Amino acid sequence: VENFDIEFPPQPSRRCRVFFGNGLFGRAAEYAAALSGESRIAVIADDRVAPLYGGDLLRHLQAARPKADLVTFPAGEGSKNWQVLGRLLQRMVELNIGRDGVVVALGGGVTGDLAGMAAALHCRGIAWLQLPTTTLAMADSAIGGKTAVNLGGAKNIAGAFHQPAAVFADLDTLSTLEARHFSAGLAEVVKTALITDAGLFARLESAQGALLDSSSSLLQQVLARCALLKAEVVARDELEAGERALLNAGHTIGHALESASGGQLLHGEAIAISLVLECRLAQKLCRFPGRDLQRLVALLQSLDLPTAVPAGAVPEDVMRFISADKKNRAGELRFALPEAIGRAVTTGCEWTVSVDPKDIIGMLRKE
Amino acid sequence: VENFDIEFPPQPSRRCRVFFGNGLFGRAAEYAAALSGESRIAVIADDRVAPLYGGDLLRHLQAARPKADLVTFPAGEGSKNWQVLGRLLQRMVELNIGRDGVVVALGGGVTGDLAGMAAALHCRGIAWLQLPTTTLAMADSAIGGKTAVNLGGAKNIAGAFHQPAAVFADLDTLSTLEARHFSAGLAEVVKTALITDAGLFARLESAQGALLDSSSSLLQQVLARCALLKAEVVARDELEAGERALLNAGHTIGHALESASGGQLLHGEAIAISLVLECRLAQKLCRFPGRDLQRLVALLQSLDLPTAVPAGAVPEDVMRFISADKKNRAGELRFALPEAIGRAVTTGCEWTVSVDPKDIIGMLRKE
Repeated sequence: VENFDIEFPPQPSRRCRVFFGNGLFGRAAEYAAALSGESRIAVIADDRVAPLYGGDLLRHLQAARPKADLVTFPAGEGSKNWQVLGRLLQRMVELNIGRDGVVVALGGGVTGDLAGMAAALHCRGIAWLQLPTTTLAMADSAIGGKTAVNLGGAKNIAGAFHQPAAVFADLDTLSTLEARHFSAGLAEVVKTALITDAGLFARLESAQGALLDSSSSLLQQVLARCALLKAEVVARDELEAGERALLNAGHTIGHALESASGGQLLHGEAIAISLVLECRLAQKLCRFPGRDLQRLVALLQSLDLPTAVPAGAVPEDVMRFISADKKNRAGELRFALPEAIGRAVTTGCEWTVSVDPKDIIGMLRKE
Repeated sequence: VENFDIEFPPQPSRRCRVFFGNGLFGRAAEYAAALSGESRIAVIADDRVAPLYGGDLLRHLQAARPKADLVTFPAGEGSKNWQVLGRLLQRMVELNIGRDGVVVALGGGVTGDLAGMAAALHCRGIAWLQLPTTTLAMADSAIGGKTAVNLGGAKNIAGAFHQPAAVFADLDTLSTLEARHFSAGLAEVVKTALITDAGLFARLESAQGALLDSSSSLLQQVLARCALLKAEVVARDELEAGERALLNAGHTIGHALESASGGQLLHGEAIAISLVLECRLAQKLCRFPGRDLQRLVALLQSLDLPTAVPAGAVPEDVMRFISADKKNRAGELRFALPEAIGRAVTTGCEWTVSVDPKDIIGMLRKE
């Protein structure tokens, strides 16, 4: 037997620039043009956002660089699948996007996941930008480079880590966001505060009305703060070897509720319900205070978010999705749980807590 | 405008262990079992290799770890597409492979590309091993972590860099490789020698007959040497920012000939023809010696490889595929060309040479 080792040296560090403000399309376009050099730019947006903001962004891009095209797909979580991703990649081949081309994701979480994965795979990875247009994408999904599609009934099961070069969160785009989606995104803000920042949580409690106003400066501050808190975690643990798992709080039961609802629950709504359920688990397993649970429920309700499992949900169905969750390790269910508002349970070198399936199904039945 | 930067520190270095020898399945199985801990292992193989070696490998794996399954797909380059990749990922979800699961690619270049891409995407990347069973995969494609599928008529356009943890090249598996495929893989050996190692090239010239004998110790030495030469380049430039582009010698015209042939030419056969054509270009553009061109043609012929464009190939068709190649930069065609046997043209900071499309089509017409 002949043998040798190939040693791959560390990949160099990378930087992602993040901007929150109003009227950022011009700046984003200049950034994309500088990044793409002489090459083509593909703006990817769904068919709800494209008519609202696609033309405006394209004009800005084409002022700086003529080779920009708009690529669209049907709006909604249902598009986050293998077939739609394949069609986006096919379109990028037709547009002759080269390995020095640039993808611009214009939209919410679904668009970021699809466009980011397309950028990750096309020519084995090209540069991309995120222009989030929802509260959810601004506070959470545009940060951290996770991209994915759903497949075989499993949420986000096929994907890639691929950091965008920059994120431009233009608050103006929130003015056209439906109220239900606006609220849903704030569930991610609550999650981040619950697990990492008691001060932010208290600020959310006192702000309330202002958080539902897209033009309030408080909203911008809160979304930017939330993005920064997430950025600090993902910079320390980009590939989720440990600490980043904390950001999955509310996401194990949440993904299962979302999948089991067959599209009835928005992602953020499922997260809101799941935060309540997981805090009940934490109350049982980690002495999470009852008072903090009441504060959580009150805050979510003030943001027009659901806090109880929908009447139609079948506990066994939800449980089946939980068992298939990709965050499980060696068949063990592991949850990121808070021990109090603003503080996650971290025991030694573990960031997540092993949970007995019986405890989960019991709690789903109680609902 | 509020803004901040996220600094992602370098990802740690990684190691890939490479073994060449006989009877390596037991060793590979132990390695896979150690890597997967309590989790499941998916062996991915095509329906030609699975009946030959799948059962044997599975027995070895199951001796060490019971949770191993065989996942198959139809043999041939035609399977290297988005739909087949989607079905493999779907099967991995059904098998409940977790993020600590392991993929084992058992087969040639197509299997490595498909299984490696499935491993790269499942749960955003899980560990994998390569067990190459062809001369092509042993000498070339199993090394370096490039994975991809063809899409929209473009070869390898959608893919990922995802290094295997180890490569076990078991020469015993070559005993069942068809002569035509056996020869085709040796085209990659000739390529590597041509572009990086005059000594290896001379050794190939003097070896000849022994290279076509799967049990010759010379064959093992030559394949392992070729893998090591490639490993040295990819370790210095994993993501093909520069030097790695040298390994694309013969691959720009080669991919186009392969695609234009509609499956008539094997990858290695197209590379053999393309090496001759690209050396003619090099003769015109970079003073590649006429004597070296004669040596190249003679060596390829001694290995039963084609050296001329097939009679049916339409130069304009081939040219269209060349124009769509993902290695083009800003619309410019760039080739890795040798200046003599064993030495690539490298000018200053450039590893590739800009080539006028007229020169290529002229040369294709002359054929």
